[in-house]
Amino acid sequence: MSTREFELIARIRARVALRDDVVLGIGDDAALLQVPAGQQLVVAMDTLNAGVHFPEDTAPADIGWKALAVNLSDLAAMGAQPAWCTLSLSMPEADTAFVDGFLDGFLALASQHDVALVGGDTTRGPLSICVTVHGFVEAGTALRRDAARIGDDIWVSGTLGDAAGGLQQWRERTVKGGQSGLSLANGHSDPLLRARLDRPTPRIVLGRALQSIAHACIDVSDGQLADLGHLCKASGVGAQVNIDALPASEALCAAFDQQVRQRLQATGGDDYELCFTVAPDARAAVDAVAREMELELTRIGVIIATPGVATRTAEGAWSAPAAGWVHFG
Amino acid sequence: MSTREFELIARIRARVALRDDVVLGIGDDAALLQVPAGQQLVVAMDTLNAGVHFPEDTAPADIGWKALAVNLSDLAAMGAQPAWCTLSLSMPEADTAFVDGFLDGFLALASQHDVALVGGDTTRGPLSICVTVHGFVEAGTALRRDAARIGDDIWVSGTLGDAAGGLQQWRERTVKGGQSGLSLANGHSDPLLRARLDRPTPRIVLGRALQSIAHACIDVSDGQLADLGHLCKASGVGAQVNIDALPASEALCAAFDQQVRQRLQATGGDDYELCFTVAPDARAAVDAVAREMELELTRIGVIIATPGVATRTAEGAWSAPAAGWVHFG
Repeated sequence: MSTREFELIARIRARVALRDDVVLGIGDDAALLQVPAGQQLVVAMDTLNAGVHFPEDTAPADIGWKALAVNLSDLAAMGAQPAWCTLSLSMPEADTAFVDGFLDGFLALASQHDVALVGGDTTRGPLSICVTVHGFVEAGTALRRDAARIGDDIWVSGTLGDAAGGLQQWRERTVKGGQSGLSLANGHSDPLLRARLDRPTPRIVLGRALQSIAHACIDVSDGQLADLGHLCKASGVGAQVNIDALPASEALCAAFDQQVRQRLQATGGDDYELCFTVAPDARAAVDAVAREMELELTRIGVIIATPGVATRTAEGAWSAPAAGWVHFG
Repeated sequence: MSTREFELIARIRARVALRDDVVLGIGDDAALLQVPAGQQLVVAMDTLNAGVHFPEDTAPADIGWKALAVNLSDLAAMGAQPAWCTLSLSMPEADTAFVDGFLDGFLALASQHDVALVGGDTTRGPLSICVTVHGFVEAGTALRRDAARIGDDIWVSGTLGDAAGGLQQWRERTVKGGQSGLSLANGHSDPLLRARLDRPTPRIVLGRALQSIAHACIDVSDGQLADLGHLCKASGVGAQVNIDALPASEALCAAFDQQVRQRLQATGGDDYELCFTVAPDARAAVDAVAREMELELTRIGVIIATPGVATRTAEGAWSAPAAGWVHFG
């Protein structure tokens, strides 16, 4: 490591929070951690690359937030309680201003969920952020993709398509003469949509609450229909989804016409909401969680035996499962 | 994720080994893992970027091996028993031939140490490999950097400078008219030195054996004197090192004159040997480990109270601690 790298690590180390279960954090060859008795360890790892996973003009603090958020979202989908993370930060040069800003966002979210940064590295390379998160679940209680049952209701949290809408607006604005075929109602970038792209909310509390209610769960990172498709495939079932039922934010409705909006909701990625399946007789329990959390939870379809994800709008017939909304892809 | 990304993940998933303590491996939002009762979790994370951490012409299998090896080396330095890893692989395009080769090396080393690949991601971006490894130690038995005691002997495993020698030869060969100031005895790249650069051996078994013998331990990744300096700083002590005692391979001796060789041994990185401190009355125990493992373990100096790492050659006086071999940097 270079002297600058040590300075960066010292800068990071000075700001990290501690937890009683961190026996040894940043500063040795590895971290020493104590998993509570009776708990299983839940581990997820995701990388963000500049220009691929976030626009080049994203603020360092937003990059920091998102790098942790997309990982915490994976823990949320398992119903896990977050505990620790490690961070590998590759930068073209040791840029202390960038690191300070990055940590502002990263540690703000870490603090919200009592996550301790316990190790990792900083290296020279194209801007790239890799995070590994660790959490716990009681043995046998993790939410999984492969547990959906025929007849389950399909639910989704929050609103869909906002992040994709924000990205679409950014593209329209920055790509000169861009021919996306999208109609922007207002011609500028909506800060609410951009915030959903830059600062997604990992649904940790929801995931914990769903542990005893939901059968299967996945986070919406690739797009609602795509991720529901993964859940169905893992569970050996299929799904029918009412496209008109997909929840939309006021900001999304204001920014795009219905056709574009529904494409964004159905296929846009980066929402980091939770999509989960629940037996119909547990609808009241889901509604109670929604009220308790003051978070919209919407029934959007049902699990069926036929593989694939079939879709329809209120007035339309069911699509062939395989077709789905692929023509929007 | 793209279709190609799913294909890559399916390719990886088909080849990974299983362990009984992996409740849920690749394929869900996160892995579910069972840490054995009474054990602490040991976690390390390191990234390799193309052109920074390995020459651009490195074979995919060697990149795979090294990406895991540098991480396992961190576990070795803690005396930990490896168990699981996650892998984040960024590539300019979904290159199945690269991934197959990469896995050949990565999984060959994983298999040697019974490490299960349990998750991660593949993404688009400049070639970069981030690995997180997980291992166990009995609570309270981890080797640490901060436990060296005044009067301890300083030991190092194997030979030093080979990887840096291999890198130096590669540079001499590939940089036309390169002015490194080094004298190559034979003018070509020594395969043994290059192998030490490409396929380092994580000293897992040695780390386990040293748990009850050594006071402090670190792996040699930045260079012998630099890493010993980290150990001393963490322990609040200093060190005297006899440069003539640093172990050299026959290949290194054959390839470089003494001055260059000693610089490579003292300051070259990427050796991934273990440097550790042991009370003088435990020399026989260290020798027994060396015999048992058929691995050279060499006493190279002593821990002193004065901070910094002082060096000398057999006929020379001690350098000022701060100076050390900095002029070689």
